[in-house]
Amino acid sequence: MQQQRKIEVCLTPALLPLYNIENSIVIVIDIFRATSSICYGIDNGAEAIIPVATVEECIALKDDICLLAAERDGKVVEGFDFGNSPFSYTTEKVKGKTIVLTTTNGTHAIDESKKTAYQVIIGSFLNVDAVCDYLKTQDKDVFLLCAGWKNKFNLEDTLFAGAVVSRLKDGNYFQDDSSTAAEDLYQLAKHDLGAYTAKTSHSERLKLLGIEEDIKFCLQENITQTIPVLKGNKLVKMVF
Amino acid sequence: MQQQRKIEVCLTPALLPLYNIENSIVIVIDIFRATSSICYGIDNGAEAIIPVATVEECIALKDDICLLAAERDGKVVEGFDFGNSPFSYTTEKVKGKTIVLTTTNGTHAIDESKKTAYQVIIGSFLNVDAVCDYLKTQDKDVFLLCAGWKNKFNLEDTLFAGAVVSRLKDGNYFQDDSSTAAEDLYQLAKHDLGAYTAKTSHSERLKLLGIEEDIKFCLQENITQTIPVLKGNKLVKMVF
Repeated sequence: MQQQRKIEVCLTPALLPLYNIENSIVIVIDIFRATSSICYGIDNGAEAIIPVATVEECIALKDDICLLAAERDGKVVEGFDFGNSPFSYTTEKVKGKTIVLTTTNGTHAIDESKKTAYQVIIGSFLNVDAVCDYLKTQDKDVFLLCAGWKNKFNLEDTLFAGAVVSRLKDGNYFQDDSSTAAEDLYQLAKHDLGAYTAKTSHSERLKLLGIEEDIKFCLQENITQTIPVLKGNKLVKMVF
Repeated sequence: MQQQRKIEVCLTPALLPLYNIENSIVIVIDIFRATSSICYGIDNGAEAIIPVATVEECIALKDDICLLAAERDGKVVEGFDFGNSPFSYTTEKVKGKTIVLTTTNGTHAIDESKKTAYQVIIGSFLNVDAVCDYLKTQDKDVFLLCAGWKNKFNLEDTLFAGAVVSRLKDGNYFQDDSSTAAEDLYQLAKHDLGAYTAKTSHSERLKLLGIEEDIKFCLQENITQTIPVLKGNKLVKMVF
């Protein structure tokens, strides 16, 4: 008999050591803005995005074909080409390029999960249906890893996790409590994600940085079918 | 100018090191069943309840005036007087007694928070209004510490945190994202807490243990005005 698959939502990377993810496809989630920008950049023809944990590693990987992207506390780190605003990841800027990227939360989550996961892919509202369609075809557990904010819980990543749970609902998965909570919050918020996320602490922070347009952009559903997948240390476009 | 007070919800004890709780009243929450039983036991005249982290410490503190209570994985540990079912904490059984208690989740949360918190009190649906009335009178931050299940998120503790947040709403507190999520989940669940918590993983586990009556008992609101507070290493009745 086939074992029942499970869906788990890990609300922050700090809780990752509590889980066994060897048989899981990990979906890394950092809605504002790392994983949204990664989806957009790969869709716009970036050859690869190399996520690294620290600014130092980012600099160490610099060569002539690379763009360097570094964000800390919502801002582009001084001396870098850009940070993690999706508007930096247009076709014009990234086509054919390799980007080395470090961000406050998202790249840390990728780094931690790749050590033991069966596979690591990148999710955002921009590619939510493509991600779910892919997961449905795989006989694997689903592990939704919210990047959070400095290891604390955040609402926007949890809402996206809930969006995935609600779409996989009919697949007879075992759900843990955090996926039930995430799904219920998504059901509350889905008719106006913008209004709902406006009450998050992070949204307040981003507003202070003057990047409301980024937020609006990151809450669009299904503007791409591309799924970035981790191959070695590079995020590349998944080929079906 | 008085600084704005804040409400934070810590979704599991594993996240506690991320917070500064020196100016916070910590409300420890383990709805099924440790903190519900503690509230009931202190209300029924137990002189003190001494929470300890391990079964060994529990045994070490044994003397003639003590009752020993130990629960692991939902069951009474062999050789102990009782575990953490509220029905073991009736007046007949506990009046005038000191109880040394260790549980899977709740006592660990108390142990961790007491190191730095301004004050540690015990919350459950049984005394929710009393807890909130007390918090309103104190010029302190509010820190709702969910015991969770083996350091993972659980729904019932989060719902109680949301019940407190919703009652303190008008107090002009700063809320973090987890308190917003907890409050919204409570609003969804409050009209039938029993039906909502029936979908939690923990409730499934408790059902297998045949303790549905305990669950029903723990979801009653305001059957006591007593607030257990930590004095030294003992939980005693708060005196106003």
